[in-house]
Amino acid sequence: MQRIYLDANATTPLLPEVLEAMRPFWLEVFGNASSIHQPGQQARAALDLARDQMASFLHCRASEVVFTSGGTEGDNLALFGAMGPSDASTPGHLITTSVEHNAVLKTALALGEAGAEVTILPCNTQGVVEPAALQAALRPNTRLVSIIFANNETGVIQPIAELAAIAHAHGALFHTDAVQAAGKLPLDLSPEGPLRHVDLLTLSGHKLYAPKGTGVLFVRRSVRLAPLLFGGSHERHRRPGTENVPGIVALGKAAELAGAWMASKEHAHLAQLRDRLEAGLLASIPASGVNGAGAPRTGNTTNLYFDHVEAEALVIALDLKGIAVSGGSACHSGATEPSHVLKAMGLSTERARGSIRFSLSRLTTAQEIDAALAIIPDAVARLRQLSPTWKQS
Amino acid sequence: MQRIYLDANATTPLLPEVLEAMRPFWLEVFGNASSIHQPGQQARAALDLARDQMASFLHCRASEVVFTSGGTEGDNLALFGAMGPSDASTPGHLITTSVEHNAVLKTALALGEAGAEVTILPCNTQGVVEPAALQAALRPNTRLVSIIFANNETGVIQPIAELAAIAHAHGALFHTDAVQAAGKLPLDLSPEGPLRHVDLLTLSGHKLYAPKGTGVLFVRRSVRLAPLLFGGSHERHRRPGTENVPGIVALGKAAELAGAWMASKEHAHLAQLRDRLEAGLLASIPASGVNGAGAPRTGNTTNLYFDHVEAEALVIALDLKGIAVSGGSACHSGATEPSHVLKAMGLSTERARGSIRFSLSRLTTAQEIDAALAIIPDAVARLRQLSPTWKQS
Repeated sequence: MQRIYLDANATTPLLPEVLEAMRPFWLEVFGNASSIHQPGQQARAALDLARDQMASFLHCRASEVVFTSGGTEGDNLALFGAMGPSDASTPGHLITTSVEHNAVLKTALALGEAGAEVTILPCNTQGVVEPAALQAALRPNTRLVSIIFANNETGVIQPIAELAAIAHAHGALFHTDAVQAAGKLPLDLSPEGPLRHVDLLTLSGHKLYAPKGTGVLFVRRSVRLAPLLFGGSHERHRRPGTENVPGIVALGKAAELAGAWMASKEHAHLAQLRDRLEAGLLASIPASGVNGAGAPRTGNTTNLYFDHVEAEALVIALDLKGIAVSGGSACHSGATEPSHVLKAMGLSTERARGSIRFSLSRLTTAQEIDAALAIIPDAVARLRQLSPTWKQS
Repeated sequence: MQRIYLDANATTPLLPEVLEAMRPFWLEVFGNASSIHQPGQQARAALDLARDQMASFLHCRASEVVFTSGGTEGDNLALFGAMGPSDASTPGHLITTSVEHNAVLKTALALGEAGAEVTILPCNTQGVVEPAALQAALRPNTRLVSIIFANNETGVIQPIAELAAIAHAHGALFHTDAVQAAGKLPLDLSPEGPLRHVDLLTLSGHKLYAPKGTGVLFVRRSVRLAPLLFGGSHERHRRPGTENVPGIVALGKAAELAGAWMASKEHAHLAQLRDRLEAGLLASIPASGVNGAGAPRTGNTTNLYFDHVEAEALVIALDLKGIAVSGGSACHSGATEPSHVLKAMGLSTERARGSIRFSLSRLTTAQEIDAALAIIPDAVARLRQLSPTWKQS
């Protein structure tokens, strides 16, 4: 059976070049990058190169790159670090949105329990956060605005440049979780670039064809960030712990490859494959539609609802046919609650529970899309035959 | 030039079997372990196996193993998580020691700044924390006692079973940073075992021949721990973030290998190599001695002072001869302050600055020790010839 992986937003495989880049760092160049002897300094040089590669990818300074253990840690460090402590007399105010990943949303709730004021902005029916809503929510004590760049479930892209400018005009810091934007959208954080008002930006390695357990928090030079972890003086005192040299080397290489890929024709080709999948499914499956169709979306993602189908049943049925897809975020798998993102967009509970995310990777081929199109409509039809509500409709 | 690595307490290379164990998880079995499809479930099964391997190594339940990004995160999670919030009306009390790794010591200081009461216990001249000192320091509001199992700089082993029993008898939780004990000393955390009073125990992968960026916090079933990071429900809500599947697989394998190695004759052989190195250096270098010689020590470590020698100069001189050693903790490299551990043992600043850590790995050979013994005394003598104080003495 051919296996077709359409769940790249959950995680990506390593690229062979990324695997190759980290190969010397397991047995040969294995030193601790803080050691002053030659094995340590070899590791340090490799870290420096990776930091330069990441800085080049983000159009920022090497000193603005903080390597972390992943997206969750990056988001937590950004929110806790920028908010700082709150108390009853001087509570800080955090603004975030209803379409964040849980790494931001749950952290915001934890900050709320610790005394901060927290505002959760709504989105419109296409999943977009309106700049006017942010403008209206700002308060004198707003310390941080955190808004996801591209949503993991729908691919919907927020107007980050505009939102960040609004936050800055008000004197608040701006963070964006760009885990699902990296390698799909240009990220130019230079002082003259479109993202010049973004102060903090989170990346995850394993969504970018680099290893799980790696990530980056971009921290603009002007930002004072309280650390989340305490220990050694690694990462300029912003993130202690012996550096994960092979992982960071891999992430640097992955950033370099992502930059080159985005400048290539393959980037547009992937969006065409996504469009072919989306159009094919819509044409062959009645009572279906695209969630967030009216918004700009990342080129690899489509989130479709199939009325009268339980997403989890469809995920399992497709898995048996060799196709890996997802009902919402991987971190939510097995959860009985419908996606908070789709609910925020105004979908009914039933429709949210009947929605599937298809996310293509750079390795996805036209042949795989055609094969998927030959399988999925039939799988949906079979499940509907078992549905009492479908028969009535 | 032969390269001889005697800095295993800074970091270890991967064992070839560990590298082999994680090989399938980069390109083939690359799924997100939270995904319900087959690629995800394959990753989940690998995680489950690694968790069982680690539980077997620690003689604990699989559910008591929390995978982290390393020793620093484990120590931070243990201290913040067990202490919980403090305020002026109900401050918690933390007891730790002057011979901790910075991942505990700096975290304790951060807790102190956040309102907790913190006691730093002294050690004796051999680096051992006296049980009577702990007994005397306990207060009605002592929530946690955190004491390092084996010191990273000296190898000195604390009487952890006894110290933990004292903490428990008082109703306080007990944590130990066992990063340098794992794979060197038996760690039996079973409810009937000698470490039954240890509630929390930190391990780091890269000191155990597994990758950097991996670690474990053992959390005894009875312990309620507040999370440090917020996001998904991974690790039973104790540590969110997509699991680092290859790293965890490697760590599980490394734990299995460590258990087998400790039961083999090689374990005693390594201690003999260390003893040969130590005795050879003491015999051939005047005005030298072993720091912590009077205490039980891990079998791979010796920390020697060479009067009238700057440790950093000797580290560099030996590096030029192909020998990698360390002046104190790697995390402290380049720091101008002398080791806080050696100072706590009562060494003068000069002697602390003239002390070198030699830490052998499982891969160290007798030939390497003999080669090192042929090089080191001469290097010390040459440096002393440049020292005005040596010429006067």
